[in-house]
Amino acid sequence: METGTPVTGASAEDFELLNRYWSAANYLTVAQIYLQENPLLREPLLPRHIKPRLLGHWGTSPGLSLIYAHLNRLIRRTSAEVLFVAGPGHGGPAVVANVYLEGTYSEIYPKVGMDLQGLRRLVRQFSTPGGIASHVGPATPGSIHEGGELGYSLMHATGAAMDNPGLIVACVIGDGEAETGPLEASWKAPSFLNPARDGAVLPILHLNGYKISGPTVLGRKSDEDVEALLSAHGWDPVTVSGEGPVLVHRALASAMDESYGRIRELQSTARSQGVHGPARWPAIILRTPKGWSGPAMVDGLPVEGTFRSHQVPLADVRENPEHLAQLEAWMRSYQPETLFDDAGRLVSELAALVPEGSLRMGAARAGRGGTGTVLEIPGLEQYAVPAAPRGSVVHETTRPLGELLRDVYIATAPDPRFRLFCPDETNSNRLGAVFEATDRCLLEPARAGDHAATEDHVSPGGRVMEVLSEHLCQGWLEGYLLTGRHGLFASYEAFAMVSASMTVQHAKWLQHARELEWRAPVPSLNILLTSTCWRNDHNGFSHQGPGLIDTVLSLSGTVTRVYLPPDANTLLVTADHILRSKDYVNLVVVDKQPHPQYLTLEEARRHAEAGASIWSWAGNEQSFGGEPDGARAVPDVVLACAGDIPTQETLAAAWLLQEHLPGLVVRVVNVMDAMVLPPRDAHPHGLSSEKFEELFTADREVIMAWHGYARALHQLLHGRPRPERFHVRGYNEQGTTTTPFDMVVLNKMSRYHLVLEALRRIHRQVGGADELVDFCRRQLDAHARYIREHFEDLPEIRDWSWTPHLP
Amino acid sequence: METGTPVTGASAEDFELLNRYWSAANYLTVAQIYLQENPLLREPLLPRHIKPRLLGHWGTSPGLSLIYAHLNRLIRRTSAEVLFVAGPGHGGPAVVANVYLEGTYSEIYPKVGMDLQGLRRLVRQFSTPGGIASHVGPATPGSIHEGGELGYSLMHATGAAMDNPGLIVACVIGDGEAETGPLEASWKAPSFLNPARDGAVLPILHLNGYKISGPTVLGRKSDEDVEALLSAHGWDPVTVSGEGPVLVHRALASAMDESYGRIRELQSTARSQGVHGPARWPAIILRTPKGWSGPAMVDGLPVEGTFRSHQVPLADVRENPEHLAQLEAWMRSYQPETLFDDAGRLVSELAALVPEGSLRMGAARAGRGGTGTVLEIPGLEQYAVPAAPRGSVVHETTRPLGELLRDVYIATAPDPRFRLFCPDETNSNRLGAVFEATDRCLLEPARAGDHAATEDHVSPGGRVMEVLSEHLCQGWLEGYLLTGRHGLFASYEAFAMVSASMTVQHAKWLQHARELEWRAPVPSLNILLTSTCWRNDHNGFSHQGPGLIDTVLSLSGTVTRVYLPPDANTLLVTADHILRSKDYVNLVVVDKQPHPQYLTLEEARRHAEAGASIWSWAGNEQSFGGEPDGARAVPDVVLACAGDIPTQETLAAAWLLQEHLPGLVVRVVNVMDAMVLPPRDAHPHGLSSEKFEELFTADREVIMAWHGYARALHQLLHGRPRPERFHVRGYNEQGTTTTPFDMVVLNKMSRYHLVLEALRRIHRQVGGADELVDFCRRQLDAHARYIREHFEDLPEIRDWSWTPHLP
Repeated sequence: METGTPVTGASAEDFELLNRYWSAANYLTVAQIYLQENPLLREPLLPRHIKPRLLGHWGTSPGLSLIYAHLNRLIRRTSAEVLFVAGPGHGGPAVVANVYLEGTYSEIYPKVGMDLQGLRRLVRQFSTPGGIASHVGPATPGSIHEGGELGYSLMHATGAAMDNPGLIVACVIGDGEAETGPLEASWKAPSFLNPARDGAVLPILHLNGYKISGPTVLGRKSDEDVEALLSAHGWDPVTVSGEGPVLVHRALASAMDESYGRIRELQSTARSQGVHGPARWPAIILRTPKGWSGPAMVDGLPVEGTFRSHQVPLADVRENPEHLAQLEAWMRSYQPETLFDDAGRLVSELAALVPEGSLRMGAARAGRGGTGTVLEIPGLEQYAVPAAPRGSVVHETTRPLGELLRDVYIATAPDPRFRLFCPDETNSNRLGAVFEATDRCLLEPARAGDHAATEDHVSPGGRVMEVLSEHLCQGWLEGYLLTGRHGLFASYEAFAMVSASMTVQHAKWLQHARELEWRAPVPSLNILLTSTCWRNDHNGFSHQGPGLIDTVLSLSGTVTRVYLPPDANTLLVTADHILRSKDYVNLVVVDKQPHPQYLTLEEARRHAEAGASIWSWAGNEQSFGGEPDGARAVPDVVLACAGDIPTQETLAAAWLLQEHLPGLVVRVVNVMDAMVLPPRDAHPHGLSSEKFEELFTADREVIMAWHGYARALHQLLHGRPRPERFHVRGYNEQGTTTTPFDMVVLNKMSRYHLVLEALRRIHRQVGGADELVDFCRRQLDAHARYIREHFEDLPEIRDWSWTPHLP
Repeated sequence: METGTPVTGASAEDFELLNRYWSAANYLTVAQIYLQENPLLREPLLPRHIKPRLLGHWGTSPGLSLIYAHLNRLIRRTSAEVLFVAGPGHGGPAVVANVYLEGTYSEIYPKVGMDLQGLRRLVRQFSTPGGIASHVGPATPGSIHEGGELGYSLMHATGAAMDNPGLIVACVIGDGEAETGPLEASWKAPSFLNPARDGAVLPILHLNGYKISGPTVLGRKSDEDVEALLSAHGWDPVTVSGEGPVLVHRALASAMDESYGRIRELQSTARSQGVHGPARWPAIILRTPKGWSGPAMVDGLPVEGTFRSHQVPLADVRENPEHLAQLEAWMRSYQPETLFDDAGRLVSELAALVPEGSLRMGAARAGRGGTGTVLEIPGLEQYAVPAAPRGSVVHETTRPLGELLRDVYIATAPDPRFRLFCPDETNSNRLGAVFEATDRCLLEPARAGDHAATEDHVSPGGRVMEVLSEHLCQGWLEGYLLTGRHGLFASYEAFAMVSASMTVQHAKWLQHARELEWRAPVPSLNILLTSTCWRNDHNGFSHQGPGLIDTVLSLSGTVTRVYLPPDANTLLVTADHILRSKDYVNLVVVDKQPHPQYLTLEEARRHAEAGASIWSWAGNEQSFGGEPDGARAVPDVVLACAGDIPTQETLAAAWLLQEHLPGLVVRVVNVMDAMVLPPRDAHPHGLSSEKFEELFTADREVIMAWHGYARALHQLLHGRPRPERFHVRGYNEQGTTTTPFDMVVLNKMSRYHLVLEALRRIHRQVGGADELVDFCRRQLDAHARYIREHFEDLPEIRDWSWTPHLP
C-alpha cells in the first residue's frame, strides 16, 4: 500500500486542532504520572504538587495517544464502529487520558468529572493505592485487553472481529510485544478472517525502537524488512514515520483514510462477489520516537527516542529542583492553558473532535461485554447414551458432545455467535459431528485435486477454528468471548499448558471485571481437555501431563471451576451448564477414547447438581442396612474417585473388595466437580461440613483415585476433618509408550493398587484379606511380566484385565 | 538464494545410491510401524507378521529421511560437524531408521544389532510396551529435542549453535509446528547468532501441506510468500519442491551444497573481517508430498499427499486382506532384497554413504550432552553482604548475584560456556553488573546517535541474551544446556508462566535422559524469578502470580528443586549450588527490591545445607532453657516461613508475640528449600521424620507464611504428622496497584494476620493476649483507613509500619 495521497477533507487547521488534542492527551498523561495537586499548572509547580511515588510508563504513551486521536478523526468522518486494543497497555495513563477527554470515563466514574475537581482526582488516582492500576485493564472503558503479559493483543483483536461484520478493531502492537511468539503467530489472521462475515482488524505496529532497557529487533530492521514481514503474512502494510508532528499527522491521517477505504472495499467486494482467497487487509507501521514530546536530555543523557523514556523520565522530582523545573517546562510545553477552560473542561474546539455518543471508543458496546446474547442449548435427551447395564456400554465419551455442538452451530446459524477452537484435533477429539453443520475455516485457496472443499470440510465460511497454536486458539476465543459471544477451546490435556499463562491472565481479568457493574457478564472461557494422560499410552511421556488442573486450582474460586465428568451423559450435562454460564473459567477434563458408561441422563443431572455423590450401586451399604439412595450404614472404607479412568479403576477395586471380602462395608463416592472438596471459604462450591461428612464420613479412611497429580488434591482437602485419612492415587509423572492399563500400574492407581492401599489402611483382619492381597500382588506381577519380561511375545493392547459386572 | 547450480562432484549414480539409501530408511520406517516378524519380507506377508496395535506417524517420515540422507552426503563431502534436530519428532521411526542404518543405534543398544535378529528387535520394539516411544526423544541417539509439544525445534537449534563455532545445526521444521507462536518467534535467530563465534543453524522448513486432519497455513501459501517471510526475518531462503525423487534429489543436494558454502563463507568473512550486521544465513524450504512414496489411494480416498497419510495409512491390516496386500506391495516397492544382504546388513554400497565415526549425526557429541565442561564459580566471600545487625541492613537481594555472574563471565571468557537469558530485565533485576563483563547481544546495526554500542551495552559480541520472549529465552537456554553449557534464565515471576509448559517438558526430558548411561549429565535448567507477586505492588494484579512454583512442585522429585532464599547471602549460596548442578530444573524465587538481610555467608551456607533451620535468634527458646544453636525447649507455637517477604513478616510477628507476651515460647523456622517439606518418598530432599519433628515438633500448631499460593503448600505437607496443624498464609490471588505492605494485608499474610492466626490457634489465655489481639486489629484498621479512606491524602509508600529490632 502506498501512502501520501491527499487526506480526505482535512485542512491545515484541522491538523493543528488534532495536534492540540494530542497535546491535551499527552499533558494529562504526564499529569497522571507526576501530579497530586495543581493538575492544570495554574500555580507554579512545587515539590508538594508531586506524588510521593512516581510510577507509570511514559515511553509508549505519546504513540498511543497519537493513534487514538487519529482514530477519533476517522470515526467522526466515517461513523465506523471501532474497538481499540492497546497492546502496549502499560501505557495506561495515555488510554485513560483519552477516554477521559472523550467523556466516557466521567460517565462511568462520575467522581472523576470533567472539571477541575475531576481532573484533580484523575491525576491523584493513577497508580495510587486505592486508585487505579497503571496498566490498561478491566477498569478501563472500552478495553477488552490487559496490558500486562505481552503477546495477545492481535489475537484478542482478531477474535473480537469474528462474526462482528460491522466492527473495525484497531490494534496497537508495540515493538516489544512484537518479539513474543504469540504475537508473531497472530500475524496469520488474514488466513482466517472472512471479509464477508467478519469484521476487520487494523493492526498498527508502533515501533519506537526500544523495550525497557534495550533495542528491539523490529525497531532496528529496515522499513522494507518490516513491510516484507507483514506482507508475507498476507497484509498490505504502509509505513508512517517521522519525528516532526506536522508531517506525521498528515501521513497517519492519510494512512488511516486509505486503510479504512480499503477495508470497506474488501468487505464490499467479498459481500457482493463472494470470497476468493484471503483479503489483503491494510496494516499500518508507525515509527515515532519513544517518549515523543518528552524531555530530550536528562542529566546529560538522551531520553526522548531512547529506552530511558520507558517509564518515568525524570526521577526524584520532589528533591531535585532541576528535574522539577524540567518537568514544569515539559508540561507547559503542551500549553495546558489553551487546552482546558476555566472550569477545567477541554476547550470546545477540541471537544468537537470527539466522536458522537456510542461511537466513542471508550463507549464501544464490544468493549463492555457485548450485547448479552443467550446461547440456546438443545435438549440433551437426543444425545444421551444408554448406560445400562452400568459399565457394560462402552462409548467414546466426547462423541455425543460433538453432536450437541453440531446442533448449537445449526441453531445459531441465523445469528452466528458460537465457535469451536481447536489446534487440529476436532476429529481426533471425536467432535467431528460439527462438520455436518460447518467447516474448518481457512481463507487460503483450496488445492486442486485435494478434497479439501468437500469431504475435508475446509472453507472460508467454516466456523471451526483449527490452527496448530494453542495460543491462537485460546486468544481468538478470549477475544470472541470478551465481546459477548460463546465458544469452546478443545485441546490435548498436556499441551493445554502451552497457554496456561493465558488462562491465569483471563481468570484475573474476569475476577476484576465482574466487580464492575458497567461491564456485562461475558460467556465463560470453556476449556475441554481430551487426550488425557491416562490414555496417551500411545504417544508417550511428553503427552502425559495433567498440570493445567493444578494451575486452575490455585486461582480464585470466584471465577474458576474444574469438572471431571466420568462418562458421556455427565459430560453432556456439564457442557450444557458451562456453555450457558458467564464470567467463569471452566476446565473440563475427560478422555475421548471408548470408556464404560455409568449414568443415565437423569442420574447425570442429579450427580452434576450435587457435584459429588455416593454411587450406592457400586458399594454394598444397602446390604448392611443402608438406604437405597445412598449411604447410611457406616462404611469400613470409602473409595472415592474423580475422572473417567480413576472411576473405572475405583469401581473395579470396589467390586474386588466386595467379591473377596463380603463382610466389608464399602462405599464409592464419585466427584465430578473438584471444587466441592475444599471448605466453602476456599471455594463457593465447597460442600458444607455436614454434606462433606455425609459423603466421606468424619473419620473413615478414604482411598481416592484422582485424575491429576496425586499430591495436588491435598491442597483441596486441607480444612476437612482428618485430612491425613485421604490416601490419594493419581498421576505421578510416570509414563512411556505402553498400554493404558500399564499407565495406571506405573502410577500405582490400578484397581489392585487401590485394593492394596485400602487393605493397608483399614488395618484389620477381614476374612480373606490376606488372600486378596496375594491375588492383587499376583495380578501385578503377572502384568509386570507381561509388559517387561515377555518382550519377545508382543502384547496385545488388552486395556484392562477384565471389567467387573456392575449392578 | 538461487538454486540449480551443478551439484559438487555428484553423478547420476551417486543420486541413484542416495535414493536407494532413502528407500532403506523408508522401508525400515514402515517396517517399524507394521511388523513384528519377517522384518525383511523374506516370506510372503501374513497377518501374524503384523503387530497387534498399529501406531506411528508415517506422513512426515519420508521427508525426515530424505533430509537425513542428504545431510549424510554433505557430511561425507565436507567433514562438517552436524547436529540434527527433528521438529516433526513424531516421525520417530524415520529418525530411528536413520541412526540404525548409520550404526550408532546398535553401538548404543547392542541388542538391536545390525543383523536379522537386530532388525527383528528394531521393528518389534517400536511403539510397543517395554519397547521405545513413537517420538524422537532422549532415547534417540543424537537428539536434543523431544518430538512432542511443538514449537521449540528452532530455538533449541539456535541455543545449541551458540558458542559452538564449528557446529552446524540442521533443524527440520514441519508446517504444523510452523503455525505455533514459539516457532514463529524463533525465526529471528539471525539477529542474535554471531557468525564469528557461534555455529550455524540451517533451518529446513519441510512443507507437506497438512497437519493431522487439515491443511496448514504455510502449506497453502505461495513459494514467494514463504520465501518472503523467511527473508524478512533475515534469512536467505531457497525452495526445493517436487514430487519426483530424481529432480528433488538433485535440487536438494544443490541447495545443501550451496547452503554449506554460504555458511562457511559468512563465517569466514566474519572471522577474518569482523561482524557488520546480521548474517544472511541460508535456509531451505522443502516442499514434498506428505507420506511420499506411501500408498496413493486407500479405500478409494487419496492418501499420499493428504492429511490421511499423517499416521498409519493402512488400518486393520491383520483383518483386511486387501490392506495386507497393499502393505506388502508398498513395502516391496522399496526392494528390500536389494538394500540388505543375507545377514540383514545394509549392503556395502549403501553403507558407504554413512559418514565416518563421530561425524555420524547419531554420534554427535553435542547430541549426548556435550563435553561435560565444569563451570568454575568464584569464591562467594567477595560478594557477601554484611548481615549485622540482623534485619537492619537493607540490600537489593539480587545485586550481589549480578556481581557473581559478572565474574563467571570473566572467568569463562577464554572458553565461553555461560550465558544469561532474560526478556529485557537484566538491569531491572539488579543483575546489571554483568554488563561490566559483557554486552547485550544484538547483530542488528547500532543506531547512529544512540549510545547503544557503548553505555547501553549492546553489541554483536555480547553474551547476555535479551529478547522479549520468555519462550525464546528459555528455549535458547535449553539448547545451550543440552549441548553441555551453562546458564540462567531470569524472568518476572508472573510471566515465567508463559513458558511453564517448556519447563514441564524439559523436566520430562531430564527425568528420562538421566536413566540413559550413554548421555552425559547436562547442566541444570536454572530459572530465577525476580519481581515477585509481593513486590509488584506498582504493576498491579496481572503481574502478581507465583504459579510456576505449583507447576514445578507437581513434577518428579528426581529432577525438580524449588529454592526460596530469604536474603542475599543465601541467594549466593543457592546460585553457587545450582550453577554447578546437573540434570535438574532449579527454580529460585527471590525479589529484587531492597530487603532486610539476615544471615552471614557462613550461616547462609549452613542454612542452605540444611534446607530449613530454626532461627533461634528470632525466637525465644533460649530464654526458656533451649540450646543456643536451636530448639530444645518445647515451643508454644512455631512460626515458619519460606521466601523473603514471608520471612520478614514472620520475623515481625515473632517479635510482636515476644514483646507483648513474654511468657510465650516462640520458635521461628525458615525454609529455603521447599522440597524438605514433603516426606522423603515424595522427594529426595524430604527431611527424615526425626529431623522434621525437630524443626516443627510433632504436635504444635505451625503458622506458616509461604511465598506462593497458600493452598499449594498443603500438597507438600501431606504425610507429615497432623498436617492440619499447619496454618498457611500465602498469596491468595488478591492484588492491585497499591503499597507493598497492603499486598500482604490483602492476602492476609501480614505480621498482624500471622499474630492473630497464632493466637487463634494456640487457644490459650496468655497474659496480654487480648491486648495484643486488639493491637493487631487496630493496626489493620488503621492501615485500611490509610489505604482506602484517606484517598484525599495520598499515601507515601511506607512499605512496612516498622522494622523490629532483631538480635
